[in-house]
Amino acid sequence: MRKTLTLGLFGFGCVGQGLYHVLEETHGLKATIKKIVVKNKEKQRPLSKNLFTFDKEAVLNDPEIDVVVELIDDANAAFEILKTALKNGKHVVTATKKMIAEHLEEIFYLQQQYDRSVLYEGAVCGSIPILRNLEEYYDNDLLTGIEGIFNGSTNYILTKVFEEKKGYAEALKQAQDLGFAESDPRLDVQAFDPKFKLTIAIAHAFGVFVKPEDIINIGIDKISDLDLKFAREKGYAIKLIARAIRVDGKIYGLVAPQFVEAENPLSNIRLEYNAVQLQGAFADKQLFVGKGAGSYPTGSAVLSDISALTYDYRYEYKKTHQLPRNEFSNDWSIETFVRFTQGEKVSIRDFEKFEAGYAANGQQYMVGQTEFSKLKEWAQNENIGIILAPQATFKAAQPAAVSELLHTV
Amino acid sequence: MRKTLTLGLFGFGCVGQGLYHVLEETHGLKATIKKIVVKNKEKQRPLSKNLFTFDKEAVLNDPEIDVVVELIDDANAAFEILKTALKNGKHVVTATKKMIAEHLEEIFYLQQQYDRSVLYEGAVCGSIPILRNLEEYYDNDLLTGIEGIFNGSTNYILTKVFEEKKGYAEALKQAQDLGFAESDPRLDVQAFDPKFKLTIAIAHAFGVFVKPEDIINIGIDKISDLDLKFAREKGYAIKLIARAIRVDGKIYGLVAPQFVEAENPLSNIRLEYNAVQLQGAFADKQLFVGKGAGSYPTGSAVLSDISALTYDYRYEYKKTHQLPRNEFSNDWSIETFVRFTQGEKVSIRDFEKFEAGYAANGQQYMVGQTEFSKLKEWAQNENIGIILAPQATFKAAQPAAVSELLHTV
Repeated sequence: MRKTLTLGLFGFGCVGQGLYHVLEETHGLKATIKKIVVKNKEKQRPLSKNLFTFDKEAVLNDPEIDVVVELIDDANAAFEILKTALKNGKHVVTATKKMIAEHLEEIFYLQQQYDRSVLYEGAVCGSIPILRNLEEYYDNDLLTGIEGIFNGSTNYILTKVFEEKKGYAEALKQAQDLGFAESDPRLDVQAFDPKFKLTIAIAHAFGVFVKPEDIINIGIDKISDLDLKFAREKGYAIKLIARAIRVDGKIYGLVAPQFVEAENPLSNIRLEYNAVQLQGAFADKQLFVGKGAGSYPTGSAVLSDISALTYDYRYEYKKTHQLPRNEFSNDWSIETFVRFTQGEKVSIRDFEKFEAGYAANGQQYMVGQTEFSKLKEWAQNENIGIILAPQATFKAAQPAAVSELLHTV
Repeated sequence: MRKTLTLGLFGFGCVGQGLYHVLEETHGLKATIKKIVVKNKEKQRPLSKNLFTFDKEAVLNDPEIDVVVELIDDANAAFEILKTALKNGKHVVTATKKMIAEHLEEIFYLQQQYDRSVLYEGAVCGSIPILRNLEEYYDNDLLTGIEGIFNGSTNYILTKVFEEKKGYAEALKQAQDLGFAESDPRLDVQAFDPKFKLTIAIAHAFGVFVKPEDIINIGIDKISDLDLKFAREKGYAIKLIARAIRVDGKIYGLVAPQFVEAENPLSNIRLEYNAVQLQGAFADKQLFVGKGAGSYPTGSAVLSDISALTYDYRYEYKKTHQLPRNEFSNDWSIETFVRFTQGEKVSIRDFEKFEAGYAANGQQYMVGQTEFSKLKEWAQNENIGIILAPQATFKAAQPAAVSELLHTV
């Protein structure tokens, strides 16, 4: 039998308001918002004043509230709310990816300790039900990889930049105005946001808890006009790709921009859409596409979590129990275009396998199989740009193809 | 706690063999095949003789067998197996779409009567977990439509015909050799197979049990060279689209070929891939892409059902309980290209709203909003071809766009 739920909401921004309206329109679900905790006492709000409170205890200590829905921006505060809510016997639904990614293993144990559920489908790729699918459907398929476009605002920016030849700043501003971008744009353009999501996805895909700081993230903020020109000439798109694969019990993960050929389904993912591609040994490639950002898509994912709580759903983290355990590692290499100003200390010897080089107008490209440790080092350098090659698959490079590719830069 | 399952298998064709190998490679799942019932006594089989039997009672009456996995071609025999298995206290996993589609309401009641589960994810779009998603994830979103490419072999044929300018017969032969096509090709090319899948999807999407014969299916067998030429000139693909939408509590469903513009994500679905697009009020469009046919993709879906039975999963058919109940109807119209030989009795008055006409070399096109009843009538006539317009959305037509479209036929 389905339960009737009483909700306490933290935050009434873009997603919170989306959720409120989705809930209003959804008559099949028996869940009502009793209180909304907000911070700003001055702000005008579109709903009755009685619904709002500035006191978090009014929700956390209310025994009538079964579920705390946490949708605030501040990861530290969000984690405190989550812990107190669980301790007080409440389930938690959250979409704060940074907090979840940073504390996932602890959240995993807290759920067992307090016998309560924490659900966070809205935190990973908005409306795409990827966590639930990884949990429920791909548990026995031999999943070998997960990759995709995990960040709506950078994809929006890259789409605009390519299709409308817009400048960066303008496209970013537009993404923010439309509510796709995080309030701190560095989270998006420097690829922290998709990294947090990848961290969470890895736990459900491969049963490994990784610290976000252990995953290398390379943003789109260093993409140059030369990169764009090169991509256009080749008919490539540039996409910010989050990816994790499993090879012999090791999980390798990385978020980085990549040249993407027209035949790659990810090249067709436009604007704020997200996409997740799963590679299984038998089901072969599965692609999920949906809106990854915005109030309604995320609100709708949060709603699905609330709905799942009406029948006591919990993530099982099944793969954490499977033996032998997988282990995260950065001891790997990938085929990469490295662009740098002449004078930077990038040399052929820096590549595990050097494939081709090209220089013009004070700019230089080198292409080759590159170790993650090198990528991490270069990512710190303002004058070095990194874009993965279209063939980058974490596997051996295909030198012929790449040389040919460089031929017409 | 997860159960250990003992399986009895009916059929050892393409999917059965795929399942066998998937199961061999999947160590996390505790399920073993005890017996396989086959028909042909002469056929050489790649496994130990002891595993096979020609007597269905050896499985149906074996108390050790928990789950009957039914993967045979004969819908009537399959339904008898299903009923006996349930009566004898066994769960059933099946991929026989015709049988499921024709008996779905009865299967729904039989599960309640015998308190056993019948799962059939492998029956709808192979490896795409669409039923489970409709059941688990979209239960509270306001789902308004489902459409997609539900048949791998016709999509393979259409892809080959378009990309390699192959003839029909040749492409069909190739699809059969690769194991994508049904043994009776009419099930595919006359669109019965995708209709069966749509019937099943409608039950899980909208809570309505429809008889397959109530859904109009128009195949790809009457597509002509002129249609192909027209599509090529316009940069369209032709895809066989299964679609159901909800409008004011009525469900309208149809399977028919359609001109598809390059911007439509379904136009990029190639070869034996299937795709399902869901339209929700808040999550907006969700696209699922995966292999829809072949032994491993279907075997992998069947495996997921077996896995789900280890934790007593059942379809809840949640939407059948939601009020007000939806109702299936054919009292609707859709924008259609009708091609016919001059002399056929197709007239402007046959259209709910006539938009444009064109004639050349004894062939004639008329385009307009067309009632389903007319489509059904025309579908019987060998000399009349029917292809839905790119804008066909079950909504009002856009005459301007269509006239412009016809301008350059």
